[in-house]
Amino acid sequence: MKIIDAAVIAESKFVKLFEVSYLDRKGHRRRWHVVSRDARPKCITGAQSRPDAAIIVPYHRRKNKLVVIKEYRVPIGDYQYGFPAGLLDPGEALAVTAGRELKEETGLDLVQIYRHSPAIFSSAGITDESIAMVFAEVEGSPSLHHNGDSEEIEVFLMDRQEVRDLLQRSDLFFGARAWLAMDAFARMGEAYLKD
Amino acid sequence: MKIIDAAVIAESKFVKLFEVSYLDRKGHRRRWHVVSRDARPKCITGAQSRPDAAIIVPYHRRKNKLVVIKEYRVPIGDYQYGFPAGLLDPGEALAVTAGRELKEETGLDLVQIYRHSPAIFSSAGITDESIAMVFAEVEGSPSLHHNGDSEEIEVFLMDRQEVRDLLQRSDLFFGARAWLAMDAFARMGEAYLKD
Repeated sequence: MKIIDAAVIAESKFVKLFEVSYLDRKGHRRRWHVVSRDARPKCITGAQSRPDAAIIVPYHRRKNKLVVIKEYRVPIGDYQYGFPAGLLDPGEALAVTAGRELKEETGLDLVQIYRHSPAIFSSAGITDESIAMVFAEVEGSPSLHHNGDSEEIEVFLMDRQEVRDLLQRSDLFFGARAWLAMDAFARMGEAYLKD
Repeated sequence: MKIIDAAVIAESKFVKLFEVSYLDRKGHRRRWHVVSRDARPKCITGAQSRPDAAIIVPYHRRKNKLVVIKEYRVPIGDYQYGFPAGLLDPGEALAVTAGRELKEETGLDLVQIYRHSPAIFSSAGITDESIAMVFAEVEGSPSLHHNGDSEEIEVFLMDRQEVRDLLQRSDLFFGARAWLAMDAFARMGEAYLKD
């Protein structure tokens, strides 16, 4: 397999659609459509190691509770349960993004990062988007006054049984990465979050 | 928040880009770009409950090993470690997709599904794509003769320590959902896969 080039088909402020030309393993030229947050997709830039975004799995250790948010998402036209998340600014360190987005979306403060994943890919069949999962201790009280007009976020502090019960609700929607982390937390508790 | 309508901006065989108009919580009309695998995005159709794809977390119980694949992905221009996965055909049951894609990508046979997630969203900030995680027992020996010209897949059977070691490799790339499931398996073993 060999990448040849990429042409922009459509673009908006937050997302671009590219047509990537490549040679398949028989040497035939083929095309693949790639959604990217970047000016050029990672198959061209080679910048696979830097995550586009941070997803924070926040643990309020003093209250022994996981912090879960409920947020309206336009693409699905409904509310989704998940975790605070946001894009890394250029040159910004992962821990800085994590602390900033946590504060903006929940009002809580980052105390320490227990562990984090490398840049892992959201859905590599259609997009080069990557995120890092940041497992972290947080403190403070949730507040909502940081929300913008297009953000509608509710914050919940949940113990292990409450997370387990939430995952049983067939009338709710979940982010995939958040569902997997909530499911593992429900099974393992606090130990899941730490190295 | 209220969805108004969606217009196609660009389309290819496997993915479409839509501009969705909606009213924000102050009643102002705004637009959001949405990537979808469907003819119309889920914020319009309301079909949020049916997953677009299945991701199989295959456990070879007789060998006590997790099945991991390494696959070339055009969007990232490199190989990614993950699990067998594929799109549900129209009307196809999740278990059928899981068995078919498992066979196509690894040569292994589905024995039983231990548990599965609901439709969970890959990255709801940019796409309505959803997947279901299917935790399953498999059997047989891996083979590669089912691969197409654009598929380049290697199959590995790994015990818990081998999965743990794999996740430590900073020179490799992982799918986000796969990384989370591998990480939980490395911590919990076989019990992670079952209800």
